[in-house]
Amino acid sequence: MTLIVQKYGGTSVADCARIEHVADKVCAARRAGHDLVVVVSAMAGETDRLLGLGKSISQRPSAREMDVLLSTGEQVTIALLAIALEKRGFPARSFTGAQVCIRTDKEHSKARIESIDDGKLRASLAGNCVPVVAGFQGVDESGDVTTLGRGGSDTTAVALAAALKADECQIYTDVDGVYTTDPRMVPEARRLARVTFEEMLELASLGSKVLQIRAVEFAGKYNVPLRVLSTFKEGEGTLITYEDVTMEAAVVSGIAFNRDEAEITLIGIQDEPGAAYHILGPISDANIVVDMIVQNVAREGRLDFTFTIHRNDYAQAMEILEANLKRMGAKRVIGNDRVVKISLVGVGMRSHSGVATRLFQALSEEGISIRLVATSEIKISVVVDEKHLETGVRALHAAFRLHEPPQQEHLPQPATAPVRQGGAVG
Amino acid sequence: MTLIVQKYGGTSVADCARIEHVADKVCAARRAGHDLVVVVSAMAGETDRLLGLGKSISQRPSAREMDVLLSTGEQVTIALLAIALEKRGFPARSFTGAQVCIRTDKEHSKARIESIDDGKLRASLAGNCVPVVAGFQGVDESGDVTTLGRGGSDTTAVALAAALKADECQIYTDVDGVYTTDPRMVPEARRLARVTFEEMLELASLGSKVLQIRAVEFAGKYNVPLRVLSTFKEGEGTLITYEDVTMEAAVVSGIAFNRDEAEITLIGIQDEPGAAYHILGPISDANIVVDMIVQNVAREGRLDFTFTIHRNDYAQAMEILEANLKRMGAKRVIGNDRVVKISLVGVGMRSHSGVATRLFQALSEEGISIRLVATSEIKISVVVDEKHLETGVRALHAAFRLHEPPQQEHLPQPATAPVRQGGAVG
Repeated sequence: MTLIVQKYGGTSVADCARIEHVADKVCAARRAGHDLVVVVSAMAGETDRLLGLGKSISQRPSAREMDVLLSTGEQVTIALLAIALEKRGFPARSFTGAQVCIRTDKEHSKARIESIDDGKLRASLAGNCVPVVAGFQGVDESGDVTTLGRGGSDTTAVALAAALKADECQIYTDVDGVYTTDPRMVPEARRLARVTFEEMLELASLGSKVLQIRAVEFAGKYNVPLRVLSTFKEGEGTLITYEDVTMEAAVVSGIAFNRDEAEITLIGIQDEPGAAYHILGPISDANIVVDMIVQNVAREGRLDFTFTIHRNDYAQAMEILEANLKRMGAKRVIGNDRVVKISLVGVGMRSHSGVATRLFQALSEEGISIRLVATSEIKISVVVDEKHLETGVRALHAAFRLHEPPQQEHLPQPATAPVRQGGAVG
Repeated sequence: MTLIVQKYGGTSVADCARIEHVADKVCAARRAGHDLVVVVSAMAGETDRLLGLGKSISQRPSAREMDVLLSTGEQVTIALLAIALEKRGFPARSFTGAQVCIRTDKEHSKARIESIDDGKLRASLAGNCVPVVAGFQGVDESGDVTTLGRGGSDTTAVALAAALKADECQIYTDVDGVYTTDPRMVPEARRLARVTFEEMLELASLGSKVLQIRAVEFAGKYNVPLRVLSTFKEGEGTLITYEDVTMEAAVVSGIAFNRDEAEITLIGIQDEPGAAYHILGPISDANIVVDMIVQNVAREGRLDFTFTIHRNDYAQAMEILEANLKRMGAKRVIGNDRVVKISLVGVGMRSHSGVATRLFQALSEEGISIRLVATSEIKISVVVDEKHLETGVRALHAAFRLHEPPQQEHLPQPATAPVRQGGAVG
């Protein structure tokens, strides 16, 4: 008997017909002999509708009340799915985040899960009942409703899988897996049969919006095998696990990109201890998330310091920096909010040289200048002008032959095969 | 400093504009120096929308899951009203039924409140904050969400007022008080400045759907002064309290009626102990609520036994009785599901004779035959053919001169005057 946590996102439960379809899938998995815990999001559009209601009353609604408001979205879905399961003769019980004690910190709208009391879930499972849990929500120590932020249902699913030591956590969504890059941009993009947690983290954080990054972190930390599948198309999806030594990994697994970047450079900073802190301190104080940071060696006691942020934060960041130029010991600040980031990701880079060279060559052949470069163990990122985004991604996808399955890639069967209703693998 | 519990029904919070209007009223009451606890229903139409979703998936959704589903309606409203209050500079905190521990029994969809933990509410009030509580919902001992049944928000408000020993519980609705009868039927119908709990119970249970009957019972039991007011029209509404000895009560306060009656008569029952039990036992087992019961003295060891039920239950009740005729010792069963009930209600009846006579005379003058009569201390009910409903009610309203204010009715000022924003009394 295997225990599977299945999570269905908003498009998978967008209306009653789709909820019934999800119920069919859950029942099929039960019939196949699996124990199941199901996590669901709000019906597609519902969260936006609720947000709209809140915003129509106040431009600055309190985060506490917005969480009370938004958490109703998932509560509707859990009840409807439980009803659909019961109609099919499968006992089910819905649970809100509070009811299964998904305890979080007090950070409304972006709370973090601290603990889960699995008692009610285990009792339901022992009673042959399918627990249907509201994703995205929890409860803080004083009993206030919290939400985990957009996409938080993935995190709920993984956290439940970890707490219950489930054999697999399956994230059902409207895409059938993780691709080498966005297929809307590169039609030759290929679904990956598996990627490592580390690669997935880099891919997710860089814009492949398949999974919430926190969910992947969680899954990696607790070693929960995570599988991304389509609700609407049969198939094995993409399995996200730890690197398998028997597997000859591809050098580059995928290409991520981020359209909404802005870069800011402080010029002529005095090279003193604490320089970076004095720059980024006021930026973090304004809750602006910094992505890439590039600093070259100082020349003549002065250095240039560049970082990238989300484009939406650009104006505010520039204002803050201009107001603090003197304190930062900088001569001036320049910036560009029309840039994008392209990243090559692959655990194989660790043992292969020449990846950066091939990247630079491919971009050069397209006449694309590189503004910034940053590297990590399994990733190379470049920032380029936004007009070069598509050409760049396509050139790299071809240069690294990502449309071809990696050679000698032996895929061991996952411990728990995904539930298939038909024989076809999409 | 007085403490007022205000409850706003679904039409009062039907959209964001109305929620803002409610927020204005709450703020006005706060500015007038009152402490406030606010109870709200789901936005009008929302409960039906949710019911529709549930029913579209299953004709027989489980009561547990329907409660999870429906309770989201009020949760949306509490958040929106709290946001609207905060926007106006009045600190507010929303609470679901579970969060203020409105503990109920386990009867999903018609749960009864057993206890309320007033800790969080008192803490909010002490912090100068307006608690906004979801009506209609509670939580059972195992943490499952329950609902109190339609109109249960009234009960929530009264229960909170009782628990907090509030000075007044104000029920804001779309009518501006309790009338001598339904003004849509009798244009001369007059708003009552006050009625007693007992009269209100009779009026409510008989079809004046202003207040949920359980709320009135609760208010009577805990002696919570209850006031019905309009959200949309200024005025003092109707105060429901205990009978005031200084008050020269009207003989008849109002006329209630019920369109959806059915009567059933068992003929020729053997006059033995347990006869009534053998008839009504199977009826209650089928969860059919019996209203009037009329039994005359037996003649020659046989009697006829008549009772009324809701019209919707008529077919089922007839089936049950026909199947059990022998066991009941009855000769046959006859029935009529095209009848209505008209009731005169008034505490003054206790000390006035001749009310029944005047009633019979008025109906007789209109050529209306009376099928059944039942009386209580403060009520006389008659069952007539449904075609006589309007003529009957109008005739009685005129005969008892209900369009005229009762003479010598001295209305002592209630302890807590209702909050008025303007000077006009509607």
